Amino acid sequence: MTAIGFDEPGAADVLYPTQVSIPQPSAGEVLIKVAYAGVNRPDVIQRQGNYPPPEGASPILGLEVSGEVVAVGEAVDDAMIGQKVCALTPGGGYAQYCVTQSGHCLPIPKGLSSAEAAALPETIFTVWHNVFERAWATEGETLLIHGGTSGIGTMATMLAKLYGLKVIVTCGSDAKCDAARSIGADHAINYRKVDFVEAVKEITKGKGLQIVLDMVAGEYTPRSLQCLASDGRLVTIAVLGGAKATINMAQVMVRRLTITGSTLRARSDTFKTLLAQEISRNAWPFVESGQLRPVMDKSFPLSDVIKAHERMEAGQHIGKIVLEIGD
Amino acid sequence: MTAIGFDEPGAADVLYPTQVSIPQPSAGEVLIKVAYAGVNRPDVIQRQGNYPPPEGASPILGLEVSGEVVAVGEAVDDAMIGQKVCALTPGGGYAQYCVTQSGHCLPIPKGLSSAEAAALPETIFTVWHNVFERAWATEGETLLIHGGTSGIGTMATMLAKLYGLKVIVTCGSDAKCDAARSIGADHAINYRKVDFVEAVKEITKGKGLQIVLDMVAGEYTPRSLQCLASDGRLVTIAVLGGAKATINMAQVMVRRLTITGSTLRARSDTFKTLLAQEISRNAWPFVESGQLRPVMDKSFPLSDVIKAHERMEAGQHIGKIVLEIGD
Repeated sequence: MTAIGFDEPGAADVLYPTQVSIPQPSAGEVLIKVAYAGVNRPDVIQRQGNYPPPEGASPILGLEVSGEVVAVGEAVDDAMIGQKVCALTPGGGYAQYCVTQSGHCLPIPKGLSSAEAAALPETIFTVWHNVFERAWATEGETLLIHGGTSGIGTMATMLAKLYGLKVIVTCGSDAKCDAARSIGADHAINYRKVDFVEAVKEITKGKGLQIVLDMVAGEYTPRSLQCLASDGRLVTIAVLGGAKATINMAQVMVRRLTITGSTLRARSDTFKTLLAQEISRNAWPFVESGQLRPVMDKSFPLSDVIKAHERMEAGQHIGKIVLEIGD
Repeated sequence: MTAIGFDEPGAADVLYPTQVSIPQPSAGEVLIKVAYAGVNRPDVIQRQGNYPPPEGASPILGLEVSGEVVAVGEAVDDAMIGQKVCALTPGGGYAQYCVTQSGHCLPIPKGLSSAEAAALPETIFTVWHNVFERAWATEGETLLIHGGTSGIGTMATMLAKLYGLKVIVTCGSDAKCDAARSIGADHAINYRKVDFVEAVKEITKGKGLQIVLDMVAGEYTPRSLQCLASDGRLVTIAVLGGAKATINMAQVMVRRLTITGSTLRARSDTFKTLLAQEISRNAWPFVESGQLRPVMDKSFPLSDVIKAHERMEAGQHIGKIVLEIGD
């Protein structure tokens, strides 16, 4: 089969199509004939050599796909064969065939395209766990999202709105702010023009907000903490602005703040299966009803994977980038 | 009545006995004829001018007492009159009479002296909320306590042991390490002699531990985070080493750490009442059975309040310092 490989870490142009064996599903796994693969920030970081795949995972990039189940491993109901699914994968998504745990698949409902389906798993799993589980988001609370037009940011905006939260996002341009508002954000702050701490203070009338979902870290960490009201939560899911953060522990203590974070890929198969079940019950009904659709940026054929990565790195995308692989 | 006052913030010798009116219990409150008052670090910090009492609270120092209920306000069952209780107070404990919410009192069981009873509320409320509620401590986990021989440290050690945790403490001398072990700590690290991060690594065979209860902050914060295994929790309840902490958010994210903290005094009356009920159900049975007793450092007559504060500030105490006020 065709897959995307790279020999040495580097810029996007280290990626090239190559021929490799079709993987075989082990016990508990399914083999998916891939229609589309989602492109995610961790793919870029892995390509740069800064995010090695976990032990045992495919060296091929790609953490989410859509497609058709064409074979199953032991202990998997063969009724799954022929099903159209989207799935979180342990790597290996940038290929014509990919294996993953059967429990990490979700069915593609009517009305959702294969391109859209491939754009859902990473963002929906990440947002569900971090915003609703780690930060226990609750109806009526206010959520600040840094990177409001990223795949994660757009999904977090939509899910939070469906669950009755107020959403404030930060974006890097007025056009992105407009896009974020059209997706559902109540307020969008152009961080290149105004200090988001001041803007949040104004929007919340000095009260602060309950949750920050952050992909930046570095100097954003203390500033995000300043945005929180008492009992507020900061969840960090990427450190694009640097890992080192200087914070005021007296504020953490006095305002009873909670700082936490997580990465999805490192979690156990069991955890991801339980998370898929949670999502199936709580978020998937909105996908089935058509109320929740991923914000799609652009689809590239697999042979244009370099352009897809370059687009993500340029930061000009709004929503999800996907690779078209099969039909 | 006699109470301890001070005119200007400063060293311990600003404190002096003075005559003030006996406070009257408002609705929901009781008036306690004080037998003993506990001395706590926040009293020292308030005396230094760095911890102003919350709005409406007594300007008199003292956050916990034991004694007898001698009057009740509206909406309080007058069956409480004559009861021997210990209680969390909103301030005002360094006095012959003190008012507090009826729901913040716990009955003094047989076999517990009034001096011991006055030494319980602050530590037991603080430890219960921070270790068991905020850090969700669970049987079989390992807890690292900085300040192992402080009032909080000794209570945290004993409660954690009663609930099946393994306890590691840090202390500032070999004598304090011996005392901490005799109180129940499984390991005591003299932080003046060895790096506690290295010592924890050795004790946990490189695996790290689940919870840190910290009163230091500053440069202890990142070092405490280094001691945590994946999914570990750091709870900060004082910042004696300085508030500013530089931490690695990539580590927070990758190991899914949780950083939080709290102060007790600022919480609502309702919160404290609910916490008292939790403690009544879960910790008080150990007090009633005699399995849980505060570690007593020294009792001073109220007229020696300056010596009591100086002893706490010298850091030579092991366990709780109390003031004897009534009989």
